[in-house]
Amino acid sequence: MNLSAGDIPPVKDLTIENITENVLAINSRCPNPRMKYLFERLTTHLHDFARETRLSTSEWEQSIKFLTKVGQICTDVRQEFILLSDILGLSLLVDSIDHPKPPASTEGTVLGPFHTHEAELLHHGDSISQDPDGEPCLVICTVKDTSAKPVPGVKIDVWEADSKGLYDVQRADHKVSDGRAVLESDEKGHFHFKATVPVPYPIPSDGPVGDLLRKLYRHPYRPSHMHFMFEKTGYDHLITALYLRGDPYESSDAVFGVKESLVVDLKTVSDVEGLSAKYGVSPSTRLLRYDFVLVSDHETAVLRQKEAEKEIAKQNRHMKIVNGLPIPDVD
Amino acid sequence: MNLSAGDIPPVKDLTIENITENVLAINSRCPNPRMKYLFERLTTHLHDFARETRLSTSEWEQSIKFLTKVGQICTDVRQEFILLSDILGLSLLVDSIDHPKPPASTEGTVLGPFHTHEAELLHHGDSISQDPDGEPCLVICTVKDTSAKPVPGVKIDVWEADSKGLYDVQRADHKVSDGRAVLESDEKGHFHFKATVPVPYPIPSDGPVGDLLRKLYRHPYRPSHMHFMFEKTGYDHLITALYLRGDPYESSDAVFGVKESLVVDLKTVSDVEGLSAKYGVSPSTRLLRYDFVLVSDHETAVLRQKEAEKEIAKQNRHMKIVNGLPIPDVD
Repeated sequence: MNLSAGDIPPVKDLTIENITENVLAINSRCPNPRMKYLFERLTTHLHDFARETRLSTSEWEQSIKFLTKVGQICTDVRQEFILLSDILGLSLLVDSIDHPKPPASTEGTVLGPFHTHEAELLHHGDSISQDPDGEPCLVICTVKDTSAKPVPGVKIDVWEADSKGLYDVQRADHKVSDGRAVLESDEKGHFHFKATVPVPYPIPSDGPVGDLLRKLYRHPYRPSHMHFMFEKTGYDHLITALYLRGDPYESSDAVFGVKESLVVDLKTVSDVEGLSAKYGVSPSTRLLRYDFVLVSDHETAVLRQKEAEKEIAKQNRHMKIVNGLPIPDVD
Repeated sequence: MNLSAGDIPPVKDLTIENITENVLAINSRCPNPRMKYLFERLTTHLHDFARETRLSTSEWEQSIKFLTKVGQICTDVRQEFILLSDILGLSLLVDSIDHPKPPASTEGTVLGPFHTHEAELLHHGDSISQDPDGEPCLVICTVKDTSAKPVPGVKIDVWEADSKGLYDVQRADHKVSDGRAVLESDEKGHFHFKATVPVPYPIPSDGPVGDLLRKLYRHPYRPSHMHFMFEKTGYDHLITALYLRGDPYESSDAVFGVKESLVVDLKTVSDVEGLSAKYGVSPSTRLLRYDFVLVSDHETAVLRQKEAEKEIAKQNRHMKIVNGLPIPDVD
């Protein structure tokens, strides 16, 4: 690449009004059209934000310090920038955009920071939890496609916090995987396992994001939920979770993960005749049932294209869609 | 504060379209109206950016990783987030907004990361540089107010890179202050000192911001310049710099610091009769002259108010201005 100044669009005399077009001009030689577009929009929004709020030097300095703290508290097991994205609703938004769902398929939600690759493959009926204080819960699910056909051989990750609201990786003495497992759907698209009834818990709030929540007068709690992740070649990767109806934080999740279609009514095994004997659990065991519906890669690609077309139709410029993503059409 | 969920506006069933209003609702209890407004606009721009670009999960992940790297490379003497703000034109924009200037006063520009509080107080005529390889330069300046009256007793910080393009703090063996000084204007508002002719240099490009510049196909160079900072009670703090006309990077400064009014023509002492004898320097010494004009705190406050009024007039909502900063008027 030729980075000599002579090839670069010259910056004009900079003012509050023209700084944006000047930054875009300097960035205009970026050889990756999608990256160029993202930086064009990012710069424009960032500058518009500063102009319309008349952001002060002192506020800018506080922002620089805040972002630095967010970066510096990150470790191999703590991702404060994801937490920041979560509490601003960005994570949920990006997941919803990137994984569009047709009606009647299972919606996705935030991954959260506690998924690991350590979970063991369990058999149907095994317990994912060693927590003696957790309230026992039988989880019975099916996985189908959008034409209601069972999907066998799906790799299913499940993970949940323990009765104290902690994931295994958050415990000081964490050595073995607990509260998580990998399962596989059978030929009927069925899987079941024993777990504990999830409880609400706070997201890590001892860092800059926790400070921010307090300044915004927000609590750090997530409502009770159990995470699920579904992977099978040919199907769009589904990251989701089930939430318990009636949780005190159901309508104020700190990370905006709750969607109505993912809220379930917890039952009791004795509610369903014969279930206790069939699954070999006590009749008083709580019961969580859910039928997941996966979307094929093809359906997802078609939907993504359609949604991208809807979006660019709103924009007053020539755009095209490459791999499902909009970029300006300069041909 | 009462953080129980019952007092919080309930989040509705979340969609791509309504996530923004839901985040604003959850943040609406923030007791600081300016902070609430900033987060309202920040969230809206962030979400609009993701929606209109249809930001993908993979792009979001890359952004999280990038920001984490930016935070983690920061140290006591390296501020990569300021560098990021600089190369996106945000630093220049915020300075221009927060320090509005009436016509004929000296414009401000980016502070940059190399100002220190270590510089010694020098006498007029002293040299700020010990660099044997630098080209000698006599700097003669005045400081006046907007009614052309000299301003005595102004504390003036000056700093510049050496002939290799490095500030003292960037040298591995940095112990004593070099290439920087504090001076004070005399009763005629005059100050002068010896320095070296500034040279272009690259901003630190061995970190994530340098990687970003390369991906954007941008060079990391700043054109030759000398920094000045002016402080006196009653006057708006002026952070500025002078740039040499004809520099190869004059129109492509990596951090968007150049303003036309700050570009100077370097002369030679022999160009002005009697100057060599008067200042005791060789006739071949290069000469930099500039008349700085400071704005009073009062003038700045009036201008800031006026500019904020212009800005809120564009916005389709009831706004008020508190301490020069717009906030929604909800009374």
